[in-house]
Amino acid sequence: MAGSVHGLPFLKGHGTENDFVIVPDPDGLLDIGPGAVARLCDRRAGIGGDGLLHVVRSAAHPESAALAGEAEWFMDYRNADGSIAEMCGNGVRVFARYLVHAGYAEPGDLPVATRAGVRRVHIAKDGPDGRPGGITVDMGRAVLPGPDGIEVAVGPRRWPARNVNMGNPHAVAFVADLDHAGDLLSAPSVAPAGVYPDGVNVEFVVDRGPAHVAMRVHERGSGETRSCGTGACAVAVAAARRDGADPAVTGRPAEYTVDLPGGRLLITEHPDGRVEMTGPAVIVAEGVIDPGWLTAAG
Amino acid sequence: MAGSVHGLPFLKGHGTENDFVIVPDPDGLLDIGPGAVARLCDRRAGIGGDGLLHVVRSAAHPESAALAGEAEWFMDYRNADGSIAEMCGNGVRVFARYLVHAGYAEPGDLPVATRAGVRRVHIAKDGPDGRPGGITVDMGRAVLPGPDGIEVAVGPRRWPARNVNMGNPHAVAFVADLDHAGDLLSAPSVAPAGVYPDGVNVEFVVDRGPAHVAMRVHERGSGETRSCGTGACAVAVAAARRDGADPAVTGRPAEYTVDLPGGRLLITEHPDGRVEMTGPAVIVAEGVIDPGWLTAAG
Repeated sequence: MAGSVHGLPFLKGHGTENDFVIVPDPDGLLDIGPGAVARLCDRRAGIGGDGLLHVVRSAAHPESAALAGEAEWFMDYRNADGSIAEMCGNGVRVFARYLVHAGYAEPGDLPVATRAGVRRVHIAKDGPDGRPGGITVDMGRAVLPGPDGIEVAVGPRRWPARNVNMGNPHAVAFVADLDHAGDLLSAPSVAPAGVYPDGVNVEFVVDRGPAHVAMRVHERGSGETRSCGTGACAVAVAAARRDGADPAVTGRPAEYTVDLPGGRLLITEHPDGRVEMTGPAVIVAEGVIDPGWLTAAG
Repeated sequence: MAGSVHGLPFLKGHGTENDFVIVPDPDGLLDIGPGAVARLCDRRAGIGGDGLLHVVRSAAHPESAALAGEAEWFMDYRNADGSIAEMCGNGVRVFARYLVHAGYAEPGDLPVATRAGVRRVHIAKDGPDGRPGGITVDMGRAVLPGPDGIEVAVGPRRWPARNVNMGNPHAVAFVADLDHAGDLLSAPSVAPAGVYPDGVNVEFVVDRGPAHVAMRVHERGSGETRSCGTGACAVAVAAARRDGADPAVTGRPAEYTVDLPGGRLLITEHPDGRVEMTGPAVIVAEGVIDPGWLTAAG
């Protein structure tokens, strides 16, 4: 990894406990390969995170240079295993929080370049008590491809589920009790076979009050997680259909509060189909990676 | 937490992937309560670690002041849940590495005060290639209380095991293949009932060569871990008995190389019964905890 002779600056942050190693690199001087990403995201031998946010000016990165006129900053997001990812809703909030933290941006509207295109982000001003405001991210449009009759099962329990696609596939099941999903150490089974050829994220949802739900999620490839931004959006979209509040029908936005194990998100679906997610983003710490660790083999 | 107005300095380090948040506090100015420890050790909402090493001069801490004449530094070790712990062999190595890193100690012999008394530590000089040397910790004496006939079982497989106490209880089973222990998501069963009234750490061991073994460990209360210092000692002690190399009988030290999932340890048992553990200790990063995160509720 280039540029690391005096220690690599980093931060750690999280959004509803989806956590990230942040590597600031405004001028795109660092070549962070998959091995370095995996080492940095290793929770015991490195810093630890669900992914890495490489912060680069759009003009300074070949994958985003064409977007530089629309968005000054590019979120070069990597999964913890070092692979490339297009987008991460919780990650975008933490990315935007970092830009304000570092003085690169002000609260207000902020377009962010990602591999899934430019995402509109809004950073609320800090509250009068100094608590940071929420950050809103445009999550795109939901698609509900059907079919009816999808069923999710855990052990002997079965629930009907709704198929919601937020760019990735979800099966949303309303249940009587979140504990009925068990320990979720293995993936719930989803029928009929063939509906989700690439696997599926499964959400279990209970009501907490009017337009207020709580959920657990089993993410394909990851197991149960503390938070899933697209999953929270899928849950709100499914709940609006169940509650007769489909914005395309009512002409009014549908707003749902969604409690996840890692925190609370507010999901708004607009009559034109756009889904916005608002939630917290927290910088935990900042420092430098030890140069000896960085250059060590392994 | 006092003293945190401008951000709390911290480091992250690990020994054979047993990882720690290090909080330097030479003059004992910080009052780090159980809640703060748990937040700092939270892997997603905080920094993340198996435990916290609060670094204090012995004279500056009420639990170690009486040891100040023997050991300048006190390892105030906490478990990740905030509870107090007496000792941690991998933690002592990381603690010693930090003292050298910070310029508080030089390679050589270094007594360290712990809640289990003063531990003798030796820090090897860096190698000619600049790689840091190993750190040796006196782990005390092993006791082999018996009885014979202890059996460890995972699913349908059963193995005889040896009872070794290193201050904490271990059942050491030599197996044909480490994969035979399965995924170790639940505790292996140990018979006869009553041998380990307070639970037991279970080690599975295979041979890798002369005086060279590899192991996996299921730690009581934690599940399978990447490394367990006392477990590696127990394994070497059991292997020496199996191999006719008991130092009390031969009059010669028994040296075993023990490979764990998180790295390699060298265990030496001396004829007088003392067990020494030598292994790596790594500083990964250092920085400051964000003051806003520290003071936030939760």
